[in-house]
Amino acid sequence: MAIKQIIEEIVAGKKEDGGIKQVYYVACGGSYGAFYPAKTFLEKEACEIKVGLYNSNEFVYNRPKAFGKNSVLVVASHKGNTPETVKAAEAGKAAGVPVIALTWVPDSPITKHADYVVGYTFGDDKDIAGEKTIVALITAVEILNQTEGYENYDKFLDGVAKIDRIVKRACKHVDKRALAFAKNHKEDSVIYTIASGAGYGAAYMESICIFMEMQWINSSSIHSGEYFHGPFEITDAETPFVIQVSEGSTRPLDERALKFLNQYGGRVEVLDAKELGLSTIDGSVIDYFNHTLFNNVYPVYNKALASEREHPLTTRRYMWKVEY
Amino acid sequence: MAIKQIIEEIVAGKKEDGGIKQVYYVACGGSYGAFYPAKTFLEKEACEIKVGLYNSNEFVYNRPKAFGKNSVLVVASHKGNTPETVKAAEAGKAAGVPVIALTWVPDSPITKHADYVVGYTFGDDKDIAGEKTIVALITAVEILNQTEGYENYDKFLDGVAKIDRIVKRACKHVDKRALAFAKNHKEDSVIYTIASGAGYGAAYMESICIFMEMQWINSSSIHSGEYFHGPFEITDAETPFVIQVSEGSTRPLDERALKFLNQYGGRVEVLDAKELGLSTIDGSVIDYFNHTLFNNVYPVYNKALASEREHPLTTRRYMWKVEY
Repeated sequence: MAIKQIIEEIVAGKKEDGGIKQVYYVACGGSYGAFYPAKTFLEKEACEIKVGLYNSNEFVYNRPKAFGKNSVLVVASHKGNTPETVKAAEAGKAAGVPVIALTWVPDSPITKHADYVVGYTFGDDKDIAGEKTIVALITAVEILNQTEGYENYDKFLDGVAKIDRIVKRACKHVDKRALAFAKNHKEDSVIYTIASGAGYGAAYMESICIFMEMQWINSSSIHSGEYFHGPFEITDAETPFVIQVSEGSTRPLDERALKFLNQYGGRVEVLDAKELGLSTIDGSVIDYFNHTLFNNVYPVYNKALASEREHPLTTRRYMWKVEY
Repeated sequence: MAIKQIIEEIVAGKKEDGGIKQVYYVACGGSYGAFYPAKTFLEKEACEIKVGLYNSNEFVYNRPKAFGKNSVLVVASHKGNTPETVKAAEAGKAAGVPVIALTWVPDSPITKHADYVVGYTFGDDKDIAGEKTIVALITAVEILNQTEGYENYDKFLDGVAKIDRIVKRACKHVDKRALAFAKNHKEDSVIYTIASGAGYGAAYMESICIFMEMQWINSSSIHSGEYFHGPFEITDAETPFVIQVSEGSTRPLDERALKFLNQYGGRVEVLDAKELGLSTIDGSVIDYFNHTLFNNVYPVYNKALASEREHPLTTRRYMWKVEY
């Protein structure tokens, strides 16, 4: 079923009962990061609806009191078997809350606790318009549009139609500089990411899923606005940063951080959404596409870095290997 | 004016106009972190009221559409002159939203844009019950109690009455181990913090304000639930972690992370709220006091670390010294 129809069905089901009042996005790690734009969208654009973004186990042990008859639960697990996320879905089902599960594996454990299962594209040549982050974002946009209304709905859909081409061009565009980045950073023991706005989730994912998980490099994702209130004191000529300069509302925050880094830092890799071609998307919705652009450009860097460091992105020491 | 009366006045003022529907906590760095328990409290306990926690510049450039006649804005700036936070307060005032400003400096710039100015205790021998985090938390508790109602209101106030004694005992309790920690970590170039639930803000503050800002040590604050979905791959015998084992809802998340660290890590400093005496506070409200406990125990470690490293906590290279 298309997401639009799923939301229509949920909205109709809650019509007599006060409608949708809360939307909870619940996942772990990369899937948690992928929900960031959806959460940010509802936080910014909705007047009545509450939105929450939770790590799955935090949700399992520390569920908000509002979770109930006016809620919708959206969970995501790539292989559909993340135990904490399966438990979160189970809690949703038990509470009678409609559960939408995003997963790449049909019939995986999480689908047993879902009212609606939504697949997404994945892999090297995926259609970007169908990837997990966009699919999650569409759940948020449909919920808003079908309840309070969303004046930029058509512009958003136009952005979705454009994003695949933008991203694929951007990936080619950074090809050479990704190789240079990899050579320049192969000995580093720490790399920071910096970002703001709805694109922050991509910086979080790059930091925890790639640098920490897949390359065993120390990292943290710093909010561009928070940078000046603590983190910037670690800036020096040697410490490497990757900064996402976003398009849209919070670009001034990123530009301010970049200006400082250009003056006091020495090793700054800039991913600029403007240069990478995001600006053909309408300004009223462009904020929400930064994440997908950056999150899909990073892999060009990641492959080059893994190759240069002779540390394959698939290597793990604990994940899926030991008990935890 | 006491916070209870401030909220009574705001509630009365909005009575004809739909009441309080959104509460926004807006600040930078340490003040942002200090708002974390207040945000978490309303997110967990409120059924109708929406809550948002924003970095000030994110709020200035990317304000939610709901911000308006049914909103309350709570800002915090220690010296009352953080430019972005002053601008956020100004935006609130311009929108006719009641602005509560938490600051240590009466008549500081931010107070010009505030409808209500609230001071707090600060410094080595402060009354913990009057510190910024507790004051912020009280704004959240009063708002909930005076609108939707809060069944554990009296238990919460009892917790406030107990926290000073608990914290001061806990600080003495860690005295020797803080010295050992300082000696053991004086050469480290990275130290991670781990936490969950309402106490996460303390881990964030320790990471960005102390390790990064005041000691120029690389750091990140890892959520205990997210640890297993990326970050745990950087765990080894040498990488140092400080883990907050909280009391209350999310203790199982922290215990799980600690169990893993005890097995695969080698250098783990444990701050355990149970051992540190938090458990005399009622279980229905204990979650919200973890932050204050940990945030006030850290300074014992921080002073020892700064002394051992011969790097005073007051040293900055950029903050308040260069233009940014």
